[in-house]
This record gives sequence, structure tokens and C-alpha cells, in this order.
Amino acid sequence: MLKNTQPLGQLAALLDAELHGNENLSITGLNTLQNAKSGELAFLANPNYQKYLASTQASAVILKPDMAKGFDGNKLILNNPYLGYAKLTALFLNTSPSQGLHPSSVIHPEATVASDASIGANSVIEAGCEIGAGAVIGAGCYVGENSIIGERTHLYANVTIYHEVTIGSDSILHSSSVIGADGFGFAPDAGRWVKIHQLGGVVIGDRVEVGAGTTIDRGALDDTVIGDGVILDNQVQIAHNVRIGENSAIAGCTAVAGSTTIGRNCTISGGCCIVGHLTLVDKVHVTAMTLVTKSIRQPGAYSSGTPMSESSVWRKNAVRFGQLNTMAGRLKVLEKITKTD
Amino acid sequence: MLKNTQPLGQLAALLDAELHGNENLSITGLNTLQNAKSGELAFLANPNYQKYLASTQASAVILKPDMAKGFDGNKLILNNPYLGYAKLTALFLNTSPSQGLHPSSVIHPEATVASDASIGANSVIEAGCEIGAGAVIGAGCYVGENSIIGERTHLYANVTIYHEVTIGSDSILHSSSVIGADGFGFAPDAGRWVKIHQLGGVVIGDRVEVGAGTTIDRGALDDTVIGDGVILDNQVQIAHNVRIGENSAIAGCTAVAGSTTIGRNCTISGGCCIVGHLTLVDKVHVTAMTLVTKSIRQPGAYSSGTPMSESSVWRKNAVRFGQLNTMAGRLKVLEKITKTD
Amino acid sequence: MLKNTQPLGQLAALLDAELHGNENLSITGLNTLQNAKSGELAFLANPNYQKYLASTQASAVILKPDMAKGFDGNKLILNNPYLGYAKLTALFLNTSPSQGLHPSSVIHPEATVASDASIGANSVIEAGCEIGAGAVIGAGCYVGENSIIGERTHLYANVTIYHEVTIGSDSILHSSSVIGADGFGFAPDAGRWVKIHQLGGVVIGDRVEVGAGTTIDRGALDDTVIGDGVILDNQVQIAHNVRIGENSAIAGCTAVAGSTTIGRNCTISGGCCIVGHLTLVDKVHVTAMTLVTKSIRQPGAYSSGTPMSESSVWRKNAVRFGQLNTMAGRLKVLEKITKTD
Repeated sequence: MLKNTQPLGQLAALLDAELHGNENLSITGLNTLQNAKSGELAFLANPNYQKYLASTQASAVILKPDMAKGFDGNKLILNNPYLGYAKLTALFLNTSPSQGLHPSSVIHPEATVASDASIGANSVIEAGCEIGAGAVIGAGCYVGENSIIGERTHLYANVTIYHEVTIGSDSILHSSSVIGADGFGFAPDAGRWVKIHQLGGVVIGDRVEVGAGTTIDRGALDDTVIGDGVILDNQVQIAHNVRIGENSAIAGCTAVAGSTTIGRNCTISGGCCIVGHLTLVDKVHVTAMTLVTKSIRQPGAYSSGTPMSESSVWRKNAVRFGQLNTMAGRLKVLEKITKTD
Repeated sequence: MLKNTQPLGQLAALLDAELHGNENLSITGLNTLQNAKSGELAFLANPNYQKYLASTQASAVILKPDMAKGFDGNKLILNNPYLGYAKLTALFLNTSPSQGLHPSSVIHPEATVASDASIGANSVIEAGCEIGAGAVIGAGCYVGENSIIGERTHLYANVTIYHEVTIGSDSILHSSSVIGADGFGFAPDAGRWVKIHQLGGVVIGDRVEVGAGTTIDRGALDDTVIGDGVILDNQVQIAHNVRIGENSAIAGCTAVAGSTTIGRNCTISGGCCIVGHLTLVDKVHVTAMTLVTKSIRQPGAYSSGTPMSESSVWRKNAVRFGQLNTMAGRLKVLEKITKTD
Repeated sequence: MLKNTQPLGQLAALLDAELHGNENLSITGLNTLQNAKSGELAFLANPNYQKYLASTQASAVILKPDMAKGFDGNKLILNNPYLGYAKLTALFLNTSPSQGLHPSSVIHPEATVASDASIGANSVIEAGCEIGAGAVIGAGCYVGENSIIGERTHLYANVTIYHEVTIGSDSILHSSSVIGADGFGFAPDAGRWVKIHQLGGVVIGDRVEVGAGTTIDRGALDDTVIGDGVILDNQVQIAHNVRIGENSAIAGCTAVAGSTTIGRNCTISGGCCIVGHLTLVDKVHVTAMTLVTKSIRQPGAYSSGTPMSESSVWRKNAVRFGQLNTMAGRLKVLEKITKTD
């Protein structure tokens, strides 16, 4: 297994960090304070982990100025050690995507593939596609007619892109994700469903991440739009004509129904459902498993649901939930009698 | 990008609509009133959008008789404009599935493939399969032993069909959907799980739509059965031995547990869980994120959950949920004291 | 369609069951009492089905000693008929995975593949992989660099394994599952997200089952770990650095967020969300659609949510949920007035 090593001085330069110690030290990887082995660079971001600083086996540590004094080892001093760690992770990747056009890939003669793009084994690129410079299409991927994959965008293995989908540059799509399948549009007709073929596309911006198994449907007439810098976790479902503003984040297993607009810098936790035709403004935060049934006009945090308890206790309270309206009426009667209302 | 154009008179004939205006007008596409460009046909179904009628750039509009009077442009008059729009969408599709048997596909010599069926690149058709007339198997699909794909049924890229699965005609399966994986059946044995190999199959009817990433498990002994005209959105999970009646619809991310029967013309919203071994009669409607834990014997609408609010407000109410049974007891005491019980 | 037949005596021997009747009887399949046809072996595990015993068409029945007296047909007597049925299912599978290395598969010269392993059509095995004895890699699968697939482990079609993933022996992974995609790790930086490349791997034990569409992310620095004998249903999401203890079971559409540890012999029902950085001890049972927001230190059953009712009734109670804290205050006032507090 190939592992990269990096001199500590070079890492300091990359982060613009103050280095105390041996700039020639070879760093073999990144780790937490408590798990780091000799040769590794650790970081101290959360004060709760300061207790591990004295005994860490790390060969160097990234830490904040105020925590640096008490540590005599090799160190990189930064105001935001967690961000520093994030920036260094790209240097220690232990995989290298295959290069060039694999002979088993099926590339339509009317597709345009940049000379330095990689097309994996058994992948299929249809007519009219444009695959940008440095883009990586993994094994078994499918890119439908007239779709555009931006520069340096990486599709891991077995991603499916339908026709007329545009993806910007520096984006990452994980395996089994599906972009551009039909939105769930049907007109009722005497007890049957008549399919509304979905004629819009999908437009995904730059620096977007799409998790494994996530699905983003094509629009009915207009496009579904995912803004620059949006990050979607695994098994997220984005319905037709949804619009998500820049740098918003959606955690795993959340579903956003059709024609809903989510603003910028929102964070939607896992397991939520946001129903259709709503608008959420910028900087809305929704906690896990919340059902959003109305538009949210003010930034802030929103929730629904009930707290967990032992099932035996929960069952008694849950029964009372079904009596809540009656209980409210009884309370009102008592208040009348006692003249407290 | 290829776009079809259609003369307005032909569209009127297809819908059996009353045409006022230029029957030779070339229609280049469909759109909403507010977004339509010259050459496009728009529709007015929802009265809320009537305000856009005067200023629409559409070259023609589908509308109801009572709304037709106030519009002087080219028009198609129909009682159900939304249904009319739905029926026309198939004419304006901007993709054409590849035709014939792709040389990179792997078709077992003991499979039967209709002469006009299409088998996409890098797809695999196993022994004993029957692929019907006009069926389209997308790139990278897998169809297991003895499975049957009906006439004109379309599997988009990267669909997986296990062995002994039967799919009717005119159905659509979207990418990453999986039909016929093992149901989740295990017998406990001294703290371990003994796998119950799943010996049943899956039977899917005609005109069924299966969304991207949706999974339908094979039965334990009998088959899992999806009725004609059923529509399943993305990331729906259908467990073993479930039976879904004709023309029922299930929205995204809903899970139906094992051996549950859902009637005809039901609509189950997104993010629901329906537990196992239940029966839902015909025409049951379940709202988003509802947990269905008992059979539903009467048609109607059903819900569970709590409404969303700001997290700070929600937290206070949620704490009280855990005290509900106690509160009910305290209310009872008060009623005794005040003799209102 | 190939079906195996087995002499009844051999099945009795395999189960160590007491046989009454014809040991040479050819058993053609397994079925329930009510659906069995001649030639089939049925089982009676649940007393509710005893009513079908007299009229069953099964040629033999597995039953408990106390139920055996009233049945004169061929029978296998066992203390746990359901477990007996489970153990026999493997004999009646009606599919045979293809054998050998398919010529269309792409196997890197630096991969190690056991001589009796099967590699399906159009699958891709990258450099440094080890595919164990008797392992079956289905069509269209992808196994990334340096990943290890244990002996007799079966990947169904279109499974994706990223790099540096280790899977034990006798495990089963269903289609569209994805093991080792990036965990959802990002550091905020002035309103943007900086990707934390995920440098850990995934370690999956022996006898693990992974359902269709299930995703298990690689760890940020350490590995994500799935213990021996764990069973995961379809569309389960396991985030980075989660650890699941031996023989735990998770039903469909449940999500477990990052760095949470689940003990041994837990059962998590469908549609749950377990938030990140929690610990659940052994033998915890969580009911369907529960949101787990805090660690669980005692074995037992846990729940959240509200019961389902007709939407019209539910709506009234749900409104009251939003007034619960006020109602509690009003109750307190009443208690003060009536001096019951």
C-alpha cells in the first residue's frame, strides 16, 4: 500500500502555520492525538482532547497558540487546527484513480473527452457528452446523451448520469448515486396514473459532493439546480425542480420533495423530510428526523418529533398524545370552574 | 440536442381538444405559462396561475372552457389541461435509447431476446431470461437467471434484476434500483442469526414505475407482488412478501416491511414506515413521515408525528411529551377535587 | 428452472430431527402449511397456523414434539421448527452463480484471485486486491485497490467496494450496496466547506449480510467496523467510524451517524436515526422510526414518536403538542389554586 510522506516544513508552508521544531521531519500520515503513531502528525482542535497531548506518540501536533505553550514537541501553530487538518488530508490519500481511457470503456464517437480525462473500465459515455480536463469517470459509470462533466470532477465507480445533466468542476459523486432520473410526476386519470415525462434537466455547480446512493431527479420542465459548494451525504433524495443554494449541507437519508427551494448555508440533518413547494431562507438549520411542512422565513434552528424513552414509558405517553385535544378541553373546563381562565 | 416539433393541430387531435387558432403552428416544446418561450405550448391547470395568462410568451395554451374566453391566442380547450399536458410530454423527450444489441453486452445463449429489443453496453442477460418485444435494457444492467422483462419495458442504466423475477409490459425501472434481492429473513439461534435463503420471487405488473435506488425484495417462499399501474418513487424499500394493489403510489424514502398488503389506489407519502404483517384497504392515504403500526380497515387519511417549530420552543414541548402520562393523572386529580369528572 | 430434490431422510439427518414416516420421500421444496403442494416440506412454528395442519397438502411437516401427536403424515420432530426450516433453505436455492473468471471482467495483474473464486461479467478488480477461495464477485461489481474479499463471500451484481476495504468470510453483499465511500466530513471555512479526505478504511467481519442499496462509509482516520454476524437490511446508512458489535441487526432505511458505537445483539428497527458520537450497550432494541439522540446505557427497548390516527384527529392533537409547555404551566396554576401541588 502506497503511502505518501511529506516533510513537516512543507506542510507548515502549505497551511501558513508557525513551525516549531524539525522542518525536515518526514510525516507519514495524519491521526488523532490518542491514536497517532511515530511519524504521524496529530491535531488538537477540541479542548476535551487536551488530556492526550502529554502522552501522544505523534511526531508533531497542530494546535492553537494558547495550547502550544505547554507542548515541547514538534508543532504547527494555527488558529484553526481542524481546518488545517482538513486541508492536509488530500496529501495522504492512499488510492490513485486509474488513468487514461480504459480499452473496455464504450465512448460514443460524438462525445468529447478531454485529453487528460480518465474513463474507467466498462463505463459508457453517450453521444454529445463533454468530459472536462482532468475529470475522472470511474469503472461502470454511465453518462447519458449531451451531459457535461466539468473539469477535475470525479465520478466514483457505478455512478449513473442520465441525459442532459450538467455538472460543474471539482465536484465528487460517489457510487450508486443517480443524477437525472425522472421526477415523480403523474396526472391522475380515472383511477390510473398518466406519466408526465420529465423534460427538464439537472444542473449541479462546482465543488459539490454527492454521497453514495443519493438520487437527484431531473426537472419536469425546468431544471433541478444544486448550487456551488453544496454537500449531500449518502442516500439523500432530491426531487424534481428542487433548488439548493450555495454551500448548504444535507445529511444522510433526508428527502426533499418537488419544487422546494432551500437557501444558502443551510444545514439539514439526517432523516428529515421537507415537503414540496416550500421555501427555506438562508441559514436555516433543521435537526434530525424533522418533518418540514411549511416554509421557513427566518434563519434559525427548527425541529419536530418527540424524545426517546424506554418503550414502556413511551407507550403510556404516546397514548396520551392521542388524548391531547381532549385533555386541553378538560383543562379549559377546570380553568372556568376555578375562574383562572 | 435534438428536439421534436409538432404541429398544433396534431396535438389537438391527439388530445381530442377543441382548437382555436393556427393548426399549422409548429410547437417546439412544453412549458409553464410564466416560463414559456415563443414556439412553446403552455397549460393553465391551477387557477392561481391565471394571472400569467395575459403576459405569457407561449405560442399556444391548453386551458379549461371557462378560462378560454379571456384568452385570444392559439388555444386548446380541454376539461383537464394538466392531464392534456401529461399526455403530450412523451412527444417532446430529448433522448433516444440506443438500439439493438450492443457488442459489449453479455447475453447467455440460453436467453431469449426479442428481435427488436435493445440490450445496452456492458449489460448482462443470464440463462433462461426472456426479454420482450421493444424492451430496452440500459447500459450496465444485470438480469438474473430465468427472469422475464415484458414488452416495451425500459430498464435505465445500472438496474439489477435478480433471478426468477417477472416484470410486465410498459414498465419503467430507474437506475440503481434492485429487484429480487433477498428478503431480510433470519432465524435466531443462540445469539446468532441463521440465514433463511429466500426462495420466492418478485412479480411486477404492467405500467409500473420504479424509482432510482428503489429496492424490492424477493419473497421468502411466495412471491412479492407489485400490481399493475403502481408507481414507486426513488429510494422506496419494499420488503419480502409485500403485496401492493393496482395504481397505488408510494413517494420517496418510504419503507414497507415484510408481508404487509397495501390495497388499490392508495397514496403513501414520503418518509413513512409501514411495519410488517399489516393490511391497508383500498384508497388509504398516509401523510409524510407517518409510522403505520396497525392495519387500516377504512379508506381515509392517516397521520402521525408532531408539527415543526423553532427548536427552542420545540424542546420545551418535547420535554412535556415525556410527562404526558403524569399530566393526565394530575388532570384527573383536579377533576376529582373540583367534581368535574 | 432447476429445482433440487432431497430425500426426507437426508433432511432429517441434516437437522438431527426425529423422522416419522417415509425416509425415501423426495422433497421438491419448502413451503408454508397453507400453500404447500404435494412433494413439499412444510413447517409449523407459530401455533396460530396449527389450524392448517389437518388440511395441508404438504408431503411432510416439521413440527414440535407437542404438536406432532395429532399429525399422522410424514414428519420431522424438532424443538425449533422455524430454525429447522431456516437451515434447509440453502438446499433449495434455484440459482447457481456463474463460475470462473468471465472473459469480460477486468482483473488487474497485481490482484490475487483464488483459483476457485468466480469473477462475473464486466466486473473490475483493482491492483492489490485479494479475492478469497470460493468467493463470488457478481457481474458489474467494482473492487478498489488493496481491498480483501474473504473466502466464500458473495457479492451480488453491481456492488461497489472502494479501496482498502476488508470483508471477512461467508458474508453476503447485495446489489447497489456501496462499501467505503467517503464519510461526510467537512471543515467549515468562512461559509464554505473544506473536504476532509477520508483516510480510514472499512473492516467487515465474517457472516455479515449487507442489504441492497446499503452504504457503509470509510473512516476519517480510523476504520469503520462491522462485527461478525451483523445483518443489515436494505438502504441502511452507516456513517464513518461507526462500530457495530457482533450479531446486531439493523432493519431497512435506518441511518447511524458518525462515530456511534452499537453493542452486540442489538436490534434496530426500520426507519430509525441514531445520531453521532453515541454509545449503545449490548442487547438494546429500538422500535421503528425512533430518533436516538443520547447514549443508551441499559439493555432494553426504546422508542420515540407518536401513534398514528386519522389525519383529522391527529391534526387536533398535533396542534396541542405545540401548546404542551403552556398546558403544563396552566396545570401547575390549577394545582396551586386547589392546593393539590
